[in-house]
Amino acid sequence: MKDYINPDFKHMVHGGDYNPDQWLDYPEVLSEDMRLMKLSHCNEMTLGIFAWSALEPEEGKFNFEWMDKVMDDIHKAGGKVVLATPSGAKPAWMAQKYVETLRVNDRGERYWYGERHNHCYTSPIYREKVKLINQKLAERYKDHPALIGWHLSNEYGGECYCDLCKEAFRGWLKKKYGSIKNLNGQWWNAFWSHTFNGFDQINPPSPLGENHVHGLKLDWKRFVSEQTADFVKHEYDSVKSITPNIPVTANLMGFYQGLNYRDIVKVIDYVSWDNYPNWVNTDHDINVAQYSAMCHDLMRSLNCRPFYLMESTPSHVNWKPYNKLKRPKVHMLSSLQAVAHGSDSVQYFQWRKSRGSFEKFHGAVVDHVGNEHTRVFKDVTAVGERLEKLDEVVGTVVRPKVALMYDWDNQWAIDMAGGFQLNDKKISQTNCQYYNAFWSKGVDIDIIGADSHDFNDYKVIFAPMRYMVSDALGEKLKSFVKNGGTLVCTYMTGMVNENDLCHLGGWPGAGLREVFGIWNEEIDTLNPGESNTVKLKDGTVVKAVDYCELIHSEGAEVLAEYDSDFYKGMPAYTVNRYGEGKAYYIAFRDDGSFTKQMINDILDEVGVSSEFDGALKKGVTAHSRTDGENTYVFLENYTPDDFETETGILWTEVDTGKTLTGKFTLSGYGTLILKK
Amino acid sequence: MKDYINPDFKHMVHGGDYNPDQWLDYPEVLSEDMRLMKLSHCNEMTLGIFAWSALEPEEGKFNFEWMDKVMDDIHKAGGKVVLATPSGAKPAWMAQKYVETLRVNDRGERYWYGERHNHCYTSPIYREKVKLINQKLAERYKDHPALIGWHLSNEYGGECYCDLCKEAFRGWLKKKYGSIKNLNGQWWNAFWSHTFNGFDQINPPSPLGENHVHGLKLDWKRFVSEQTADFVKHEYDSVKSITPNIPVTANLMGFYQGLNYRDIVKVIDYVSWDNYPNWVNTDHDINVAQYSAMCHDLMRSLNCRPFYLMESTPSHVNWKPYNKLKRPKVHMLSSLQAVAHGSDSVQYFQWRKSRGSFEKFHGAVVDHVGNEHTRVFKDVTAVGERLEKLDEVVGTVVRPKVALMYDWDNQWAIDMAGGFQLNDKKISQTNCQYYNAFWSKGVDIDIIGADSHDFNDYKVIFAPMRYMVSDALGEKLKSFVKNGGTLVCTYMTGMVNENDLCHLGGWPGAGLREVFGIWNEEIDTLNPGESNTVKLKDGTVVKAVDYCELIHSEGAEVLAEYDSDFYKGMPAYTVNRYGEGKAYYIAFRDDGSFTKQMINDILDEVGVSSEFDGALKKGVTAHSRTDGENTYVFLENYTPDDFETETGILWTEVDTGKTLTGKFTLSGYGTLILKK
Amino acid sequence: MKDYINPDFKHMVHGGDYNPDQWLDYPEVLSEDMRLMKLSHCNEMTLGIFAWSALEPEEGKFNFEWMDKVMDDIHKAGGKVVLATPSGAKPAWMAQKYVETLRVNDRGERYWYGERHNHCYTSPIYREKVKLINQKLAERYKDHPALIGWHLSNEYGGECYCDLCKEAFRGWLKKKYGSIKNLNGQWWNAFWSHTFNGFDQINPPSPLGENHVHGLKLDWKRFVSEQTADFVKHEYDSVKSITPNIPVTANLMGFYQGLNYRDIVKVIDYVSWDNYPNWVNTDHDINVAQYSAMCHDLMRSLNCRPFYLMESTPSHVNWKPYNKLKRPKVHMLSSLQAVAHGSDSVQYFQWRKSRGSFEKFHGAVVDHVGNEHTRVFKDVTAVGERLEKLDEVVGTVVRPKVALMYDWDNQWAIDMAGGFQLNDKKISQTNCQYYNAFWSKGVDIDIIGADSHDFNDYKVIFAPMRYMVSDALGEKLKSFVKNGGTLVCTYMTGMVNENDLCHLGGWPGAGLREVFGIWNEEIDTLNPGESNTVKLKDGTVVKAVDYCELIHSEGAEVLAEYDSDFYKGMPAYTVNRYGEGKAYYIAFRDDGSFTKQMINDILDEVGVSSEFDGALKKGVTAHSRTDGENTYVFLENYTPDDFETETGILWTEVDTGKTLTGKFTLSGYGTLILKK
Repeated sequence: MKDYINPDFKHMVHGGDYNPDQWLDYPEVLSEDMRLMKLSHCNEMTLGIFAWSALEPEEGKFNFEWMDKVMDDIHKAGGKVVLATPSGAKPAWMAQKYVETLRVNDRGERYWYGERHNHCYTSPIYREKVKLINQKLAERYKDHPALIGWHLSNEYGGECYCDLCKEAFRGWLKKKYGSIKNLNGQWWNAFWSHTFNGFDQINPPSPLGENHVHGLKLDWKRFVSEQTADFVKHEYDSVKSITPNIPVTANLMGFYQGLNYRDIVKVIDYVSWDNYPNWVNTDHDINVAQYSAMCHDLMRSLNCRPFYLMESTPSHVNWKPYNKLKRPKVHMLSSLQAVAHGSDSVQYFQWRKSRGSFEKFHGAVVDHVGNEHTRVFKDVTAVGERLEKLDEVVGTVVRPKVALMYDWDNQWAIDMAGGFQLNDKKISQTNCQYYNAFWSKGVDIDIIGADSHDFNDYKVIFAPMRYMVSDALGEKLKSFVKNGGTLVCTYMTGMVNENDLCHLGGWPGAGLREVFGIWNEEIDTLNPGESNTVKLKDGTVVKAVDYCELIHSEGAEVLAEYDSDFYKGMPAYTVNRYGEGKAYYIAFRDDGSFTKQMINDILDEVGVSSEFDGALKKGVTAHSRTDGENTYVFLENYTPDDFETETGILWTEVDTGKTLTGKFTLSGYGTLILKK
Repeated sequence: MKDYINPDFKHMVHGGDYNPDQWLDYPEVLSEDMRLMKLSHCNEMTLGIFAWSALEPEEGKFNFEWMDKVMDDIHKAGGKVVLATPSGAKPAWMAQKYVETLRVNDRGERYWYGERHNHCYTSPIYREKVKLINQKLAERYKDHPALIGWHLSNEYGGECYCDLCKEAFRGWLKKKYGSIKNLNGQWWNAFWSHTFNGFDQINPPSPLGENHVHGLKLDWKRFVSEQTADFVKHEYDSVKSITPNIPVTANLMGFYQGLNYRDIVKVIDYVSWDNYPNWVNTDHDINVAQYSAMCHDLMRSLNCRPFYLMESTPSHVNWKPYNKLKRPKVHMLSSLQAVAHGSDSVQYFQWRKSRGSFEKFHGAVVDHVGNEHTRVFKDVTAVGERLEKLDEVVGTVVRPKVALMYDWDNQWAIDMAGGFQLNDKKISQTNCQYYNAFWSKGVDIDIIGADSHDFNDYKVIFAPMRYMVSDALGEKLKSFVKNGGTLVCTYMTGMVNENDLCHLGGWPGAGLREVFGIWNEEIDTLNPGESNTVKLKDGTVVKAVDYCELIHSEGAEVLAEYDSDFYKGMPAYTVNRYGEGKAYYIAFRDDGSFTKQMINDILDEVGVSSEFDGALKKGVTAHSRTDGENTYVFLENYTPDDFETETGILWTEVDTGKTLTGKFTLSGYGTLILKK
Repeated sequence: MKDYINPDFKHMVHGGDYNPDQWLDYPEVLSEDMRLMKLSHCNEMTLGIFAWSALEPEEGKFNFEWMDKVMDDIHKAGGKVVLATPSGAKPAWMAQKYVETLRVNDRGERYWYGERHNHCYTSPIYREKVKLINQKLAERYKDHPALIGWHLSNEYGGECYCDLCKEAFRGWLKKKYGSIKNLNGQWWNAFWSHTFNGFDQINPPSPLGENHVHGLKLDWKRFVSEQTADFVKHEYDSVKSITPNIPVTANLMGFYQGLNYRDIVKVIDYVSWDNYPNWVNTDHDINVAQYSAMCHDLMRSLNCRPFYLMESTPSHVNWKPYNKLKRPKVHMLSSLQAVAHGSDSVQYFQWRKSRGSFEKFHGAVVDHVGNEHTRVFKDVTAVGERLEKLDEVVGTVVRPKVALMYDWDNQWAIDMAGGFQLNDKKISQTNCQYYNAFWSKGVDIDIIGADSHDFNDYKVIFAPMRYMVSDALGEKLKSFVKNGGTLVCTYMTGMVNENDLCHLGGWPGAGLREVFGIWNEEIDTLNPGESNTVKLKDGTVVKAVDYCELIHSEGAEVLAEYDSDFYKGMPAYTVNRYGEGKAYYIAFRDDGSFTKQMINDILDEVGVSSEFDGALKKGVTAHSRTDGENTYVFLENYTPDDFETETGILWTEVDTGKTLTGKFTLSGYGTLILKK
């Protein structure tokens, strides 16, 4: 059983952002683009991003002729179109006439016209103008044979502090808390005499106002996220009502901290995202690959469906401190990584380099030289040729038995917390540390949210630094373990509720003290460079850094103890049998080796392993997709060296149709796609 | 003869900030607090800080019932109360209705409601509202048996640039200078054509306006300090007029650069301050101890009376980059250090951790777990038990014969000076370098101001980096030396007058050229990493860094000369007999070893030594208090190792009443309190 | 044939900024100044900078009496005056009454009165007030015998974003582009939907608005520069119309990036500039000397005439991070360096240290002690004595055969470009790398602009990082090479046109692909610490860092190839014969050794060498001036050690009149001035 993004197009999508609106004065360029598209084995163009001033050059005066021609030309050349709404950047005339469409910053300053993504999502006028242009587009192209998808706006994000947004925020708060008394209690407003008499006294956080009331700060971020989702829904409805069968996406940005993408995924049909890993052609590339893989998994797990890699660069970008060329073979490897993790596309920003302005030196399929005789064009062509052989992979899904828990609001709350290592509690690095252990074993995982996923789909859940645990989540975890699940948590678990209000009565709170069978008395924060040691039952000694909790067992089995400092002998790692399941507690942060071993042991215990049966080595991993019947394994080698391994299974190589078993070699920077 | 802060309470105060107003919805917590207070050997609660919105939830609608109960409960539990005025944070309704109560920043932007300490000290409305609530409090509790002191607001500080403050500044200038011509002359306004025609043309320094007229910048800082003191006086009067016998304090912050605390001390009855040393349990702790000791001495010397340690943490804080747990024994040592330097209290911020908002992870006596079974609670209890044995120390004073001169305006002027090492002239480090030499010898010192202290109380005055010397100070120093005092100054002495106007005719100015018998021609500023050498008379060679002045002897005896660079052979260290006294001049900055030896030699010469006759070692010091008859010596060990020393005096251990003489051991991180 | 700045004063000018307006209350100081001026062998005072509030203390009320007396006194003492217009700092009354004269920053905030250089150059009122005071000055002193020159304002610079300036900017754009469509095309405004409908929609770049449209940013910088020049012209006209024979200058600041000085030089008579090299008395001083030399050459080459060193410090400054004393001999060496590069003056900021405000610790001829008995005063006197012997050098010029191409807008465009090493493309360091090679050989060079100079005056032109090449420049370079010139370019050549719009069809663009005979496909940007190697034809291997272009020869001879990485074997250094000339292309950045050797080889090939025939060593250089008949060579030694060399020419030492030939010694930090 397959899950197609668009059942009318059962091929891997290969293409990218195309901005003919920049080249309307260069007709020879536009026709050359069609020739080159075919040459490069691209089958798609993402059209219309930032094209508003070309589509509506003056208020109410629309110009679709150029787009008609481009759509037709693409179709004639055998291509498809993902059509963007143009709301990512408004025309100058709109800013000039409707000042309220411009954002206001957190000091109350209205922005001037400029840049992009600089409009108030609350503004009724902006919403009206967006709806109008979106509907014009939908009406015009709803029956165009090239149209296979919608792309809403571009990389939604940012915040606005205008009076309209403030008022919307107050309404949101009122809806959430009901009474101001309830809000005062949850935000702990008696602190610093902040008790509000009414919602009208509340403003968003600001460098000129409040910055230390965490409840306010958290709610503001939640409001921004939900208000953005509301705007996305507004855009979605405007096109969906006209083209009900065309799937709609918005391009996301991995772990971007400005939005909770679980709000956004609720209001779109499928996920797509923009991935710009910092390949640098050194040992460090393994970390880059792991981080990129984790992002793909996060994006896919948003709705556990196939997604699009909506943007990637065929070469370098132009906004990193150092913009190095992509080395030979890396583009293929990077592109297939997305597919391995569930992408049904490889798309680029951008098709052709702009002639001017900020992104003119951003990598693209077609360079300023304007022809097919470049290294980059050939790399892209090779990817196109390979993707054409992967039709059967399209629509397959990823179904792991292991989950890593990650929620945006948990990270927000940890990041803003006073105390500990004040400026960076390193939740991101900790997530990586956990993720890398799975990646190195070639074990597929989902990255799940507290509210958004059914825990019973998984055998084991890892929830590092789960600082924020609502009573509801506490119950859900308790019941997961009780019913036989394995739960792994760490230092900083269950300290606060969903409004960052401390759990009283001993940590971990929200009922988890009972689940883990421990009490966490204090958290020692080490200075940089300092460390402690932890001795495991088998005598192994591992290093503890950053955080060491002083916990007491209240029934849990102690698996390791601190080996030095004044809390020597106190438990550092415990397991508690609870109902049918087990709850592991890791009281310290380690430098990575303990985490890896601990994860290996636990996965062995619960019986989860890689879909690939052979040995892997550092830098080589395996990820799988399935249609419920066939399993497709992607063997990926992020090292320059060939790697010999052995399998006991009889595989079919998907590209070539050849069978494979026993000893075989995976070439340096190579990817094998095997079917079981 | 003793000097009691409150003659009706002759015990060490042990307690801290208590915010029942945060827990009004949790009556079980409030009653548990009383049980725990007794258990912890606390005898005091500081009540009402930031409680305004609980006391006056709506304008003119007051609610004292909760406080009545808390006051009574504390009294019933045997405790005392230091009652705070709530002006440190205003309620939201006030900001909403009276916008003028909100501060304006140095760009002219009015702050939004939020944070704390965010109100204009000039605003008549704010002053009126503060007076009203303060008087209500005073009237209600003036006869309450628990009341032992007033605590005005909280950690006064900050600046406001609103029109009211600007106008007040102009009035202050007019009063100081009389005529605009006089101001123009002292600020040297002809420079860059800044001559003012009237006071109405003057604005405070601003990133949008003036930043390079030092006279203006200095006067603004002085104005802010005096205007704050004026507000403190306003608060003081409002309670003092009703409770004339209750001593009033404001909690200060050591070397905080936002105020000249000598302005504040004039308008309060006794000093208290908040101390948060960064104990990290390494060798570095000795420096922490020295710095903390210097701050205690600065605070005590403000009026040379006993003081309160109004805030300290029983564990960690939550606002440092790394918030490590206090190690065992350190809390006792740190608490007794305050007493050794003249404190009659050990108080905490805070009694119980807030459940929410910014300070929820700040150390407190009672943790979120809410009981007495924590390490921290036991540490606090131990301190309480020990303090109960120190009744006889209460009210004793410190009377050193050595003074270090420090004035806020001298530091301000040096810090803002153009030239030299532009961004950090290191006056703080230089003060530490000097202080540490006294600390290591166990010699008590006062830290005195140019105007505020009688120099004749001291045998020797050290005034490093005394850049600013008014004619009046010049005369005072001259007369001090003439009458037999010993004065020690350094590079950068006597360069400017009190308005940062250079002394003409050769440095050191204001008459000091004659006192020191030298002329300072030039100051060579070395680059980081560079050094010169200085050869002393006995052939010792020491290192010179940062600053080397090219001075000429005009009668002074040369004690050392530069040993390299183009000024080799010029004097680097001189002494001049002047009248009955001596004036030493050190023309260079050294890396610390010279300073230590020089101070040792001079103290020997003037016959000043420690009150403890035995040997000390690195990290061990002695400080004393006296009632005029008995001398109490605190022997403090800031190292983890036991230390054996020997005394020829017969002492009594104050805690135990046992006698002590000959060889004895001071335990690692231990403190002995001995009576002579 | 000589080129005198003022034919009525054929002597080296020795003097500096004099601010008697700061000392009007100190008449004894003013008379002492005249005595000291003569003692110090100064013959000039620069008068009136920032004196506006002394000259016009109230609006329309003028006071010239004090200046009359100072002018007369200087004249009586045998001195001359360069008279400044006072527009560098306006009086407080003007800011108070005419708010529009205050600048507005890039967030739209109006500055408060304060600092200096804080006025809108567009403001009609400011222009009117400036014209009035300038004309009053000119009328009053036009016939004064001391007057030898005008000094307009002080160090023009800065930007204003007020409505008047915005309007002027729009007008400037309209004039430049004619139509909004044309502007949209050149700025590539279709990008991010920025197409403008009219000029009234355009604002300057701002942190609140646009920051990524390079065409806008470049044009704004050009507008600021031209608008400033327009203001300079306004000042120029106001005095020139009254004193047509008095030469007019404005003091410039070397490579200051706020203005294109080629705009300014068009509207003044002669160049002067302010030079504050960071002499630190270490090996690093050689780099300081080279950078200072390059700045002198840039300033002189603006119009290829003699110039004034309008400001320098006789000792230290007060605004560097570390303000070290100038070592013995360094002041003489530094002063004569200016003369060697074409200066007809050595002038100081400032004559006497201010008593107060920001610059009171800035080095000056007369210190706060107020007499002649200081080391600095004696150093100044020695320079004065030596300059008196150099009358015959006055008016001589520098006429190199080598040019380095440098344009402000090329640097602006590179600095703001997205991509590559994003935050610092190091064009300044690259210029230094090139310049140092010439300096080390003692070869004179000019630093020329694309539009401002005739290329045919030079045999060889080096144009490193010539990113911006308009079609006109492309033609001019093509024709230079075709006619026999030698052109040397590097990586990043000819990427964009004058509006930062990419050249299409393969780089280097604007016709240079043909001239160099290569195609540049890609630019690899290396990470810091990474390097590649390049092998030259003779087998030498050099290091490539930062940038390695992947170029293809299209006819050029390959002189070196990459020796590693995936582009091993591709050309790295090429030469192409084109017409009668040669065009060298260097595809990589090297660490300096290759550049030095390459320049040596090319200079040898075109037959350009030093005017001094003897050997030089590291830190010793030679520069020359000529009157067309005699050549004056300055041999300068920036090392502490004596240096023996040998010459085959018979020279005359200009100071002493002695002849010199064969072996001779140049003393450490010494300068010999030889006539051929």
